[in-house]
Amino acid sequence: MKQFFSVKDISSISQAVKSALDYKQNPYKDENLGKHKTIGLIFLNPSLRTRMSTQKAALNLGMDILVMNMTSDGWALETKDGVAMTGNTAEHIREAAAVMGEYCEVLGLRSFPKLKEAEEDYSEEFFSKFAAYCGKPIISLESATLHPLQSFTDLITIIESFDYQYNDLNKQYFPFTKKPKVVLTWAPHTKALPQAVPNSFAEWMCQAQAEGLVDFVIAHPEGYALKTEFTIGANITTNQEEALKNADFVYVKNWSSYEDYGKITCTDNSWMITSDKLKGTNNAKVMHCLPVRRDVVIASEVLDSKQSIVIQQAGNRVWAAQAVLKQILTKE
Amino acid sequence: MKQFFSVKDISSISQAVKSALDYKQNPYKDENLGKHKTIGLIFLNPSLRTRMSTQKAALNLGMDILVMNMTSDGWALETKDGVAMTGNTAEHIREAAAVMGEYCEVLGLRSFPKLKEAEEDYSEEFFSKFAAYCGKPIISLESATLHPLQSFTDLITIIESFDYQYNDLNKQYFPFTKKPKVVLTWAPHTKALPQAVPNSFAEWMCQAQAEGLVDFVIAHPEGYALKTEFTIGANITTNQEEALKNADFVYVKNWSSYEDYGKITCTDNSWMITSDKLKGTNNAKVMHCLPVRRDVVIASEVLDSKQSIVIQQAGNRVWAAQAVLKQILTKE
Amino acid sequence: MKQFFSVKDISSISQAVKSALDYKQNPYKDENLGKHKTIGLIFLNPSLRTRMSTQKAALNLGMDILVMNMTSDGWALETKDGVAMTGNTAEHIREAAAVMGEYCEVLGLRSFPKLKEAEEDYSEEFFSKFAAYCGKPIISLESATLHPLQSFTDLITIIESFDYQYNDLNKQYFPFTKKPKVVLTWAPHTKALPQAVPNSFAEWMCQAQAEGLVDFVIAHPEGYALKTEFTIGANITTNQEEALKNADFVYVKNWSSYEDYGKITCTDNSWMITSDKLKGTNNAKVMHCLPVRRDVVIASEVLDSKQSIVIQQAGNRVWAAQAVLKQILTKE
Repeated sequence: MKQFFSVKDISSISQAVKSALDYKQNPYKDENLGKHKTIGLIFLNPSLRTRMSTQKAALNLGMDILVMNMTSDGWALETKDGVAMTGNTAEHIREAAAVMGEYCEVLGLRSFPKLKEAEEDYSEEFFSKFAAYCGKPIISLESATLHPLQSFTDLITIIESFDYQYNDLNKQYFPFTKKPKVVLTWAPHTKALPQAVPNSFAEWMCQAQAEGLVDFVIAHPEGYALKTEFTIGANITTNQEEALKNADFVYVKNWSSYEDYGKITCTDNSWMITSDKLKGTNNAKVMHCLPVRRDVVIASEVLDSKQSIVIQQAGNRVWAAQAVLKQILTKE
Repeated sequence: MKQFFSVKDISSISQAVKSALDYKQNPYKDENLGKHKTIGLIFLNPSLRTRMSTQKAALNLGMDILVMNMTSDGWALETKDGVAMTGNTAEHIREAAAVMGEYCEVLGLRSFPKLKEAEEDYSEEFFSKFAAYCGKPIISLESATLHPLQSFTDLITIIESFDYQYNDLNKQYFPFTKKPKVVLTWAPHTKALPQAVPNSFAEWMCQAQAEGLVDFVIAHPEGYALKTEFTIGANITTNQEEALKNADFVYVKNWSSYEDYGKITCTDNSWMITSDKLKGTNNAKVMHCLPVRRDVVIASEVLDSKQSIVIQQAGNRVWAAQAVLKQILTKE
Repeated sequence: MKQFFSVKDISSISQAVKSALDYKQNPYKDENLGKHKTIGLIFLNPSLRTRMSTQKAALNLGMDILVMNMTSDGWALETKDGVAMTGNTAEHIREAAAVMGEYCEVLGLRSFPKLKEAEEDYSEEFFSKFAAYCGKPIISLESATLHPLQSFTDLITIIESFDYQYNDLNKQYFPFTKKPKVVLTWAPHTKALPQAVPNSFAEWMCQAQAEGLVDFVIAHPEGYALKTEFTIGANITTNQEEALKNADFVYVKNWSSYEDYGKITCTDNSWMITSDKLKGTNNAKVMHCLPVRRDVVIASEVLDSKQSIVIQQAGNRVWAAQAVLKQILTKE
């Protein structure tokens, strides 16, 4: 693997999940694989889970780690070509990426969208230019429109939390009795958030659905449709109650509008996930990428119940990152 | 040990000091003890000595380290339960602590008091909730009311700087000729500082006094009494000159008032420690946890003299942290 | 080596370059040399290349690393003696440096000039006091007036990019056919920048010229003369076109005026390096320490051409740092 930006960079999601769960059983089985290999983790935005879990994964593989917090430890980068750099940006991404590529065998990059212009954010200019100029394999630690390490983790968590079996012959997971119903539901929030997590989760679940692993439903208010390229095959509704019926997994997430780009167009708190809302589900497991605002996005009663698997989900970030790093280090 | 928050978490202060001084002689004797163990160092406030010495101690034991600076690299955490998180806090301590617990075998946490309400700070809500939710052994890197790694270091420094012997049979230090007189004296400062260091030093010295290791005196101006639970058995006076007489160790520290909580009620610069003030002492060694404001808290003439052992004291932070980590790793 | 602050701290620039290029061929040949040795990297200012390359070099030698970002993770340091610290500085450099010396076998320090008073900056008070008080070997990661790791890298890059041979008998490089003409040229910028990089480059090139390795020319507008102690033997001109004639290497760099200290006295954009300007050169290689403002300092057409070796140059930072660390660790 030369790039981990989207589900499309994974040749087999089943094998990737298997590799991650193998690491969960035996974290140090490849502890020399990354010896004399350096990963550079470049943060243009805050990070807790991604920062810690990716470092932990790299350490489990014996890699060296360089962390660069561009905002506090560095300076602003320019991405536009053909403009004289007379403003606030001190370095062009062409040089910054190429230099970091000189110091590292693998790079991880986190850069949030500006949420001003859809076209600008969805061009993924920053990530794609960085990838092009650094000249090394690169892992998204969340880009403007996708968060693949999170979605890979989400799939791992669904697989390990439901009745799946792994077929060693065709190297595929399959649901032993029935496919789970996985529902991604929008929920309220006080701030305008990126669409990266829901886009990415949708993309991975659509792929999982295409491979017969899940049934996938998205529920959101009017005006909150995700960009269609990420939701092909999903059953989409604006009726949350209907969507939650018989759900096995409820993935809760706020996002700002894609249509009215970056705006909060719905403040209907009735979309918050509560115990009451879960009554129609199949005793569904509740998931969220975190951080989550309690009693805004999800009620505390849910987060503190056994139905919540958000901590297990966050813990799995390590194994997702480790499986991705392995594929990069072994050039699979 | 499952928690290092206070002197009460140490079963034997003598054995702890012995363990630390053994590491000072031979830093790498347990260099594989922490292999495949990760410590997460979580800073909600600035740190120099604690940051560097705890990392060094962990490296000496072969541990992996994850550092998380919440302010610059992360976001604000909520501690209150039952409130809708519509404000500035982006994540609840319940999730943040639990997630960090997923990534680490040991956690270290630094969080200063707000110095607004004594009850709030002295509830140690942040530390105790973090400890409860992370599910892993946790080390205080300075909490609202205590700084045990500092006080442990202080005891180590006193033991190694005076005529003590270690009795291998009862595993206790004892003063060979006489007990030293240890004086904690308040000193002026331009800012309102926490009581964590003096509370903690008092707590450790009271324990040392109870075990026959020192005679302990506290001197402070009117209105600067520490909370009594930390000073049981201490000889307390508002007469600094009297206190300093025949002192063997003078521990200098400013703190804001506990009675008039968080306020500076005394600006009497005559409490600054000078060479003159030390004349009545038994050629006392001068200690301070650092950072120290020169010629405000302690005169430069004292800090630059041979009587000052503040650098040796700071150096000992490594061995204190290493001894604590060992107890946690070996579940002593 | 006990200090790496200037070219004067290197006993032989040829042997130093040879050592660095040996590491470039075989980065891990001394991977146990730094075992149980800790380097502390202390940043008072932002850093990308220096931060990452020095860490990488230390890792290649098996060292432990402690990073301290004073601004975000710590507090302001006082350098003046004999003043009561009643202001914004929380710790004196005497204590801070000595304490860091307790935790580390080697220290690296980055501290920019204030660009207010030449005398203050050129006294190098911060670096020299830190070096004196820390009691350990210290490496400049860029000081107020010099940036020796950068200049060492620059010499490495020139040696490996031209027709040099290494004489094993006298342990000297020599130019096989002819000496290259190396031109340091001032270029425009929007901000007032330190003179550290040009001072340091000049100092190293003057030494290289004295050893018969290069011919060295400096071109700058009126009012931009560097302090003469750094340019002894250099051919200095205010005619950029004349300077560039037959140049083999063009080192481009902005600096603020030394004469009218810290000021921007020339805003003549015609000093920017373009393809046109390079036509009179001997197909010169173009160098810059980075970060570089495109189309302000150097035209994009040049940076994107094969004549630019700025990325190779930045990559060599690792080997320069590694060669310096080796000399310190082996006490050569």
